[in-house]
Amino acid sequence: MRKDGIQTAVAGVSGYAGMELARLLLHHPALQGRPPVFVGRDAGAVRLTDMHPQLADNNGSSGLLVEPFSWELLKKRGVELLFLATPHEQSRSWAPEALAHGLRVVDLSGAWRLRVHEHRAIYGFHDEDAAVAERVQTGSVYGLPELHRKCIRTAQLVANPGCYATSIILALKPLLAASWVDLDRGIICDSKSGVSGAGKAPTATTHFMYAADNLSAYAVFGHRHMGEMLEQLNLKESQMIFTPHLLPIPRGILSTTYVTFREKKDTAEVDELFREFYASSPLVRIFGHLPQIQHSVRTNYCDIGFKLAKDGRRCIVVSCLDNLLKGAAGQAVENMNLMCGWDEAEGLA
Amino acid sequence: MRKDGIQTAVAGVSGYAGMELARLLLHHPALQGRPPVFVGRDAGAVRLTDMHPQLADNNGSSGLLVEPFSWELLKKRGVELLFLATPHEQSRSWAPEALAHGLRVVDLSGAWRLRVHEHRAIYGFHDEDAAVAERVQTGSVYGLPELHRKCIRTAQLVANPGCYATSIILALKPLLAASWVDLDRGIICDSKSGVSGAGKAPTATTHFMYAADNLSAYAVFGHRHMGEMLEQLNLKESQMIFTPHLLPIPRGILSTTYVTFREKKDTAEVDELFREFYASSPLVRIFGHLPQIQHSVRTNYCDIGFKLAKDGRRCIVVSCLDNLLKGAAGQAVENMNLMCGWDEAEGLA
Amino acid sequence: MRKDGIQTAVAGVSGYAGMELARLLLHHPALQGRPPVFVGRDAGAVRLTDMHPQLADNNGSSGLLVEPFSWELLKKRGVELLFLATPHEQSRSWAPEALAHGLRVVDLSGAWRLRVHEHRAIYGFHDEDAAVAERVQTGSVYGLPELHRKCIRTAQLVANPGCYATSIILALKPLLAASWVDLDRGIICDSKSGVSGAGKAPTATTHFMYAADNLSAYAVFGHRHMGEMLEQLNLKESQMIFTPHLLPIPRGILSTTYVTFREKKDTAEVDELFREFYASSPLVRIFGHLPQIQHSVRTNYCDIGFKLAKDGRRCIVVSCLDNLLKGAAGQAVENMNLMCGWDEAEGLA
Amino acid sequence: MRKDGIQTAVAGVSGYAGMELARLLLHHPALQGRPPVFVGRDAGAVRLTDMHPQLADNNGSSGLLVEPFSWELLKKRGVELLFLATPHEQSRSWAPEALAHGLRVVDLSGAWRLRVHEHRAIYGFHDEDAAVAERVQTGSVYGLPELHRKCIRTAQLVANPGCYATSIILALKPLLAASWVDLDRGIICDSKSGVSGAGKAPTATTHFMYAADNLSAYAVFGHRHMGEMLEQLNLKESQMIFTPHLLPIPRGILSTTYVTFREKKDTAEVDELFREFYASSPLVRIFGHLPQIQHSVRTNYCDIGFKLAKDGRRCIVVSCLDNLLKGAAGQAVENMNLMCGWDEAEGLA
Repeated sequence: MRKDGIQTAVAGVSGYAGMELARLLLHHPALQGRPPVFVGRDAGAVRLTDMHPQLADNNGSSGLLVEPFSWELLKKRGVELLFLATPHEQSRSWAPEALAHGLRVVDLSGAWRLRVHEHRAIYGFHDEDAAVAERVQTGSVYGLPELHRKCIRTAQLVANPGCYATSIILALKPLLAASWVDLDRGIICDSKSGVSGAGKAPTATTHFMYAADNLSAYAVFGHRHMGEMLEQLNLKESQMIFTPHLLPIPRGILSTTYVTFREKKDTAEVDELFREFYASSPLVRIFGHLPQIQHSVRTNYCDIGFKLAKDGRRCIVVSCLDNLLKGAAGQAVENMNLMCGWDEAEGLA
Repeated sequence: MRKDGIQTAVAGVSGYAGMELARLLLHHPALQGRPPVFVGRDAGAVRLTDMHPQLADNNGSSGLLVEPFSWELLKKRGVELLFLATPHEQSRSWAPEALAHGLRVVDLSGAWRLRVHEHRAIYGFHDEDAAVAERVQTGSVYGLPELHRKCIRTAQLVANPGCYATSIILALKPLLAASWVDLDRGIICDSKSGVSGAGKAPTATTHFMYAADNLSAYAVFGHRHMGEMLEQLNLKESQMIFTPHLLPIPRGILSTTYVTFREKKDTAEVDELFREFYASSPLVRIFGHLPQIQHSVRTNYCDIGFKLAKDGRRCIVVSCLDNLLKGAAGQAVENMNLMCGWDEAEGLA
Repeated sequence: MRKDGIQTAVAGVSGYAGMELARLLLHHPALQGRPPVFVGRDAGAVRLTDMHPQLADNNGSSGLLVEPFSWELLKKRGVELLFLATPHEQSRSWAPEALAHGLRVVDLSGAWRLRVHEHRAIYGFHDEDAAVAERVQTGSVYGLPELHRKCIRTAQLVANPGCYATSIILALKPLLAASWVDLDRGIICDSKSGVSGAGKAPTATTHFMYAADNLSAYAVFGHRHMGEMLEQLNLKESQMIFTPHLLPIPRGILSTTYVTFREKKDTAEVDELFREFYASSPLVRIFGHLPQIQHSVRTNYCDIGFKLAKDGRRCIVVSCLDNLLKGAAGQAVENMNLMCGWDEAEGLA
Repeated sequence: MRKDGIQTAVAGVSGYAGMELARLLLHHPALQGRPPVFVGRDAGAVRLTDMHPQLADNNGSSGLLVEPFSWELLKKRGVELLFLATPHEQSRSWAPEALAHGLRVVDLSGAWRLRVHEHRAIYGFHDEDAAVAERVQTGSVYGLPELHRKCIRTAQLVANPGCYATSIILALKPLLAASWVDLDRGIICDSKSGVSGAGKAPTATTHFMYAADNLSAYAVFGHRHMGEMLEQLNLKESQMIFTPHLLPIPRGILSTTYVTFREKKDTAEVDELFREFYASSPLVRIFGHLPQIQHSVRTNYCDIGFKLAKDGRRCIVVSCLDNLLKGAAGQAVENMNLMCGWDEAEGLA
């Protein structure tokens, strides 16, 4: 992979994650002078800065267009890596086509994250060639660099993780990998997310009057990020509860995770376990105190802290991230960095 | 009109103003034991508290239904007064029909507020009998009790004022009635409103991500409340500017109004003018300081304060109200009180 | 106790709970014409509506004063029931004095809620006569009507519960009383509260810039409401975890409580258990869905809903209330109603 | 001035503007490898990232300290340019001392912005040598690059403009410079600012409960930014009204400015005037629509748009900026860029 940048494209730039992806790629050191090709489903071209005025500057990005999607266009522009910031149905059909056209793909949707059939069922894909889907799925990598760094480097299709899933998997993995957790006691993940996680479509629950001055639990015992968490953590559904809540803030996730250790530990031991596990992970910050949303938002980090009960067995892990960055666009760029042989945190720290 | 209550009905209870109207009517002292008939456009009946869980109590309101609208139903239930908390197109066709059925009407929409043809044009009514519309319009009263108390008492159709218009007309009327204002200098009304003013339909601008952490001016030189303000204040378009802004709060309006006096006044004179003008208006509070949204919200008052420049001629009037109460449902109940011969503030103070 | 009202007094009306208490008492049907005596620590009298402009009306409450506190004043005004909306140190010294003066007391602070010495230690009371304190404590009643209705009726000193504690005790008590909960599995209470719970003093964490667009866990494994929850639920510290979080909203608490049942139950059984337990509790609403903060705020209810896992053993209970109402002032009035022999929900539903 | 960076120092990094300044300087391309010296009033050194956890990364900034201020320390570290993000009293005494030590200074406070004695009086400086103060004042430059770019390049002391003042001066200057505005009609500036503008000290008005869900006008006819606006725009107090309001958002200013032209203009003419005036200003964006706070926040731009009445004479200019960036830290860096001979927008676009 060349050090002098590659040609990227972004499909789905109109959404929140797509906008953050555009911002990150436009400022990425390895991509200077090679802005992404932006493609969308509109019939005609639209100025990127008409769509997102905050991206305007006086140095030319205002000249960038979002053009009608076609494989021909991508080919003509020499696109090598395609980001899909599209709905999962769209990603489900476009990713195999992109691979067939020789493109590498980072897909931000839930379309290709899941190996277990029952977990996939919740997305309800229709009208597809099952054999093709299975083959593509098998060839994909779950794009959580802290767990799958090595495979991501050579992957053709990277399935970027869900935002909730990122916050919870990163909080639990070190403890589970060390076999410290008493799984019979059950793990509770109580998560809270800002409204951008619900997408840009105006709906009853994204209305300001619904979300503001409110808090509500939703998708209790039925959120579709559950599948990827179980798969990545090797847990059974009976061993973990995940409850998402809708916070009255634009962005940010805080997950409060409750575990019981099989044996008594002290604070220094837990701290060391986390720090060692993430020693070579540039985008995880281990804090000596509990992280807060305001310190993670608008960064590409996942922040982790914990507190141990006096009994040394009950432990509360708090993890925070920006759902649009480490939970979406930032992680997608992190995956690009790995796929291109660049520093994992290039353009992100 | 009897002292022992009347039978009311509410059409359009699903919206924000309709919900507040339901709440006020259910708690109104003169209507105890005679809850409103709630009607909507759904084919079947819906429980009121399924629509608005916050209205549930353990004393029976949970048994109330929102029933499919029909004139027969209203007749059967003995409805005497109909509140229309419906879109203006709906109110434009239902109000004449209601009058024909012998009902008195308080309409919360903009359908019947305007006398001047050009002001009405902005609402773009179609497919209506112009002669009927003209006759109904002529028989209606603009429902701002502080100005038209006497006419409201006997009106068959009361056109409840717009929320912005209420805040601005009440701020300006005493000064204009006293001929204090130098109209050649122009009047500036810079208004800011919470999101509920934009209605319950999920749209791009009511999305939490658009409204939160933001402020935006909109409908500059073209808001449809302009017409009723000009008519009620006897002003020409060239004499007044009205600029609405969308605030990142659920409810409340603050209007900052700038006038220049023809002659020098002192603070005591201005204060006295306001206090005298509203001496018999129970739902206007004149403050010695500038009012704030937080003190007006969830009350049925319009709060008014002012500050005079050292020159004694430039004056800033700040007026606040809850757009769903004094700006909509509260004022509708105030009009009902007058129409029924009750105390103007019954159930509102 | 007479049906024609009693003379109340409120100490500490400047705070958020004190303000809500003033509002409730001024509108209470049994206290019409007998407004509370408001007392504070200022040297001179202050107008109540200068302190809280939102309480102003045109019918006289603007004439009410907050007067310098003295036992003589309370005696002179014939006060029979004193509400202490004061800091716990203040309540700790005033409550015994009030009892000695023959007053009945509802204390909204944490001063008198706790029987167990270690639970009390966290409040660190100093310079007090231990024997007197013990005697007063013993004579007090924990003012959660749903549990102690009968004792409250005749109590001289009612210790109004903490806001978090109310939401959690009411969520858990029916399940624990029925011995359904497997205590070996541990109970997790993940609570989220609006900023008013932190009081009116401007501090680093009540600053808008800290609280807005943020979420943070605090007092983890060390919140002082833990004691009253353990006492009222007969639990050991090892059986329950309570984690409070600071929400970026003015008011409202939502507690997400996780329990595991000893035996499989179905939804109807759980629903029936809750409904029966609270059948005669007018200020608890059992919802068929999960409650949200926006539906509880500005009501005097505690709303409860639940969701059962497919295994019929893991259950999530969500409870919501307004921390200033059912979590403070509303519950204080509820206690007054019981102490006076009135309907429990008088002036509250 | 060397292209290879200079040694900077920042006093007052604990505040909001100081934090943003730290962030900008740490990422500034010309300062790589030469982080600022951070100094404060604490007796001992504090880690920068303990003060501002969001500044932590895995590349070393966590090792940075905020050290006790002394001129010796600054000298020892070879500081050439000192940013004062300190209260105005502090800046008033430190700036002359810094100049005497041969340092160049960018002061973010209001201490050195004003030439007219009456405008300065509002800051009430005491115990100072009037002759020294006068001399320093005379040697200072008002640091608004769009107006004083040339003088800033060689200035020893740059007085960074106020946040409100920046938004209003930039909105009005092109129109006033072209003599288009009818000054007899008066100019109205209705401004709205987020809470960070009020500083980090916890006060009654920065309490979340005061600011949230609220809007309030303050300092009406008496805000201290008025002086710098009048001076920079060559206006008399009688020709302009400035009314600030406190918005319930963390950051961002929107100013709605009302002017009347002496002669009829069309939209194209106004647009051209603005675009020409700011043709060589990289940090002003002229929009074809009205700007919003959400598009300016977290950028270093001032965004300007306008709307003309049909009469071609009444014009509403809306200007937006981030009060901590173009209104404070961003503009301070812009001034540093000019003082060092770098591109004006280096590290800012």
